[in-house]
Amino acid sequence: MTSTAKPLFEGEPDGPVVKTAFPGPKSKQALDKLTEVFDTRAVNTLVDYTQSKGNYIVDHDGNTYLDVYAQIASIPLGYNNPELHKVASSEEMVSAIINRPALGNFPPHDWSDVLRSSLLRAAPKGQSQVFTGMSGSDANETAYKAAFMWRRQQDRGGASVEFTKEELASSMENKSPGSPPLSILSFRSSFHGRLFGTLSTTRSKPIHKLDIPAFDWPQATFPKTQYPLEKFAAENAAAEAESLAEVEHLIKTFHNPVCAVVVEPIQSEGGDNHASPDFFRKLRALTRQHKVLLIVDEVQTGIGATGRMWAHDHWELDDAPDLVTFSKKAQAAGYFYSNPDLRPNKPYRQFNTWMGDPVRALLFRELLNQIEKLDLVENTRRTGDYLYGKLEALADKYPGDIQNLRGKNCGTFIAFDTPKRDEFLLKAKSFGLNIGGCGPTSVRLRPMLIFQERHADILVDLVEKIINAL
Amino acid sequence: MTSTAKPLFEGEPDGPVVKTAFPGPKSKQALDKLTEVFDTRAVNTLVDYTQSKGNYIVDHDGNTYLDVYAQIASIPLGYNNPELHKVASSEEMVSAIINRPALGNFPPHDWSDVLRSSLLRAAPKGQSQVFTGMSGSDANETAYKAAFMWRRQQDRGGASVEFTKEELASSMENKSPGSPPLSILSFRSSFHGRLFGTLSTTRSKPIHKLDIPAFDWPQATFPKTQYPLEKFAAENAAAEAESLAEVEHLIKTFHNPVCAVVVEPIQSEGGDNHASPDFFRKLRALTRQHKVLLIVDEVQTGIGATGRMWAHDHWELDDAPDLVTFSKKAQAAGYFYSNPDLRPNKPYRQFNTWMGDPVRALLFRELLNQIEKLDLVENTRRTGDYLYGKLEALADKYPGDIQNLRGKNCGTFIAFDTPKRDEFLLKAKSFGLNIGGCGPTSVRLRPMLIFQERHADILVDLVEKIINAL
Repeated sequence: MTSTAKPLFEGEPDGPVVKTAFPGPKSKQALDKLTEVFDTRAVNTLVDYTQSKGNYIVDHDGNTYLDVYAQIASIPLGYNNPELHKVASSEEMVSAIINRPALGNFPPHDWSDVLRSSLLRAAPKGQSQVFTGMSGSDANETAYKAAFMWRRQQDRGGASVEFTKEELASSMENKSPGSPPLSILSFRSSFHGRLFGTLSTTRSKPIHKLDIPAFDWPQATFPKTQYPLEKFAAENAAAEAESLAEVEHLIKTFHNPVCAVVVEPIQSEGGDNHASPDFFRKLRALTRQHKVLLIVDEVQTGIGATGRMWAHDHWELDDAPDLVTFSKKAQAAGYFYSNPDLRPNKPYRQFNTWMGDPVRALLFRELLNQIEKLDLVENTRRTGDYLYGKLEALADKYPGDIQNLRGKNCGTFIAFDTPKRDEFLLKAKSFGLNIGGCGPTSVRLRPMLIFQERHADILVDLVEKIINAL
Repeated sequence: MTSTAKPLFEGEPDGPVVKTAFPGPKSKQALDKLTEVFDTRAVNTLVDYTQSKGNYIVDHDGNTYLDVYAQIASIPLGYNNPELHKVASSEEMVSAIINRPALGNFPPHDWSDVLRSSLLRAAPKGQSQVFTGMSGSDANETAYKAAFMWRRQQDRGGASVEFTKEELASSMENKSPGSPPLSILSFRSSFHGRLFGTLSTTRSKPIHKLDIPAFDWPQATFPKTQYPLEKFAAENAAAEAESLAEVEHLIKTFHNPVCAVVVEPIQSEGGDNHASPDFFRKLRALTRQHKVLLIVDEVQTGIGATGRMWAHDHWELDDAPDLVTFSKKAQAAGYFYSNPDLRPNKPYRQFNTWMGDPVRALLFRELLNQIEKLDLVENTRRTGDYLYGKLEALADKYPGDIQNLRGKNCGTFIAFDTPKRDEFLLKAKSFGLNIGGCGPTSVRLRPMLIFQERHADILVDLVEKIINAL
């Protein structure tokens, strides 16, 4: 019986405890107060973080929820993890908080050791360098900048070729050739962030994009795959070939030359859309063939959730992506790369005041220690298989309520469609479950890496109760 | 004798101590190691933060420098400040580190109290709301988004008017009207950040902008004032009138309609360029008249450095700016506003996963406590007057070496030009001084708020030594 396995988080609650309607009276009152000074219309739950523990989040009214959303897929080791608590109380951490460095100018003397023992220790295969940033948007945005500078450097004939007077002058006017009309290609229904460059590649929902000026950049159709993937292998292979042909066509013909393709291993915000490893291997080959960079956005998929440290590990590439971006569960953010030409030819071209935050690099170091010590990527792979099996059985029982189940062999990175999705998410609260959506009709599971079979049992039981209550 | 005033930071060194050439052997070795994995070409000094104290920064070779650059104007209360140390070791802080919330969805139950006792307690006159972010670039970038959404909402006829089908569909294609060709007007030689939107408003140096696609947005000439401002009052008034006329012309005629003007109270990165309060009052009136928002970028000028909490306090406006952005010395980042129309009409339009970091809000709360308790804004005003007087005398003695001294009555936010600027900055190291530049030929002083007359004496003495050594 798998549910008797040793708990990975000692002392967490046995299950959800619902005491009040949602939201409860204390939460309502506090929310009204917060609304006076802060936009709260996207607020889901006012959380008492001091009372939350492991996989369970506690709200301001003392309700305890099993949390399979985890701060939009960002909490890896549970609330109030005791090992992280130790590190967060250490003198090293305190110094990082109160002596915040401008990392590009005045890095700590041991910054090399910190990077090697944290971010670089987790670097995907084939990546040896890191540029540190603040968030997923920032990571992608700076990766795009690296791509543009790389491309112009290639066109110019290499790192040693000086900028022309015309380039220097026109850049100050936001005009070509100094500010070139180049582009990043992204996929329909992708999400890469909400700053001006990343938002131009985000194609998730109008509400994310409306009224914000955007660059004239191209988008290709993400393969319209059907689930389960293996059942529709032939149809999916055709959809993937069609998508790749569109990518190639755009690279060859789009009026603003494409320097990079950015892709999520699983489109997350856009609806948990999957494609096969074969698709991504061919995308890598295609970008290589056309001398276009491949940026893999692992902001949501990275750090173990798919049962591998990086989701693109599933692709078994011989030729690594050019840039890999990360944030969320890493708590730190930035991008990895290896090609020395991706360091721009002069200092201060890729630079900002803080360039990340050592607080988060130190936290990530301990995250990684715990992930290794407790074998949490393997736990997630195994728990994911178990959970997927149970959800498959539930989908057989409720075929109208659980559709397009997906994420097989992807750890706990699982999603399904349900007709009354928004009601499902809200109703979940009354059963003590905190769960998120993605795309127009999907429920996405984003539990932590300490999510075990025991939690999967509770989750599946709650999903059934919610379905029956709708 | 001012230099005998009570120290604001107990136990800091009496003065600089130079033990090795710069950079020293340990620093060189550690830098080589860091270069293998991290771009270090902008590295100034490898710092031993554990040994740094108050106004003094210590490098990896044990050299102690008086630090008047302070992590690019970002450290307010000195290295290893004991009061900040207490707060950084508190349970509240530890929880903020290890339980990082997605603030827009799952704020801590006491987030209203944290905001009111920290950021909002320091809010500029007329500002009642805050949107929290990650960095100065992020603060400006999100302020621009607020401006664009506000403008389209006005054009559409108010918050209750729904988006058209055409807007919804075209936004997904990065095309008008959903992605409108609107603009932000900035000033020549300004610096507002390096993400794609902010970089389109940054007009500091080609090296910041080259090879990065930019929006077709307008720039006006920042008043070409002469120093000291009061000596050239008539000429400066004419220059300011000319700048305002150009702003008005661009607002009226630029092909991509201007929704907001963004301006630094003192152009910092671009060379410490000053204009008079009268200029800014007229700019406020002009933007109001043309229904264009005024965004005041206080990322570098905010939090006391100019002898007022906010640099735009010097303008004594009756009509507050529409948005005020902050970061750096606040350690936290974001923008203030008051007009309810600057909250977009629907949730999730201005949103991202983390929306700032409670760690930094908690730190700022204690920063503010100390600023108030020790009267540090007044200290900075007084010390700045003292320092300016001494530098004026030095400029009289070395008129070829200290030119265009500026920042009178602006606290310690002082700068001057010097012909061999880059050599000056490097030579400073050999005298135990860490000091920064800005613009093509300027030296900028950005000491901390605990910088006192005793430090000013040392600084002025060192500046003279450097001049004589060049």
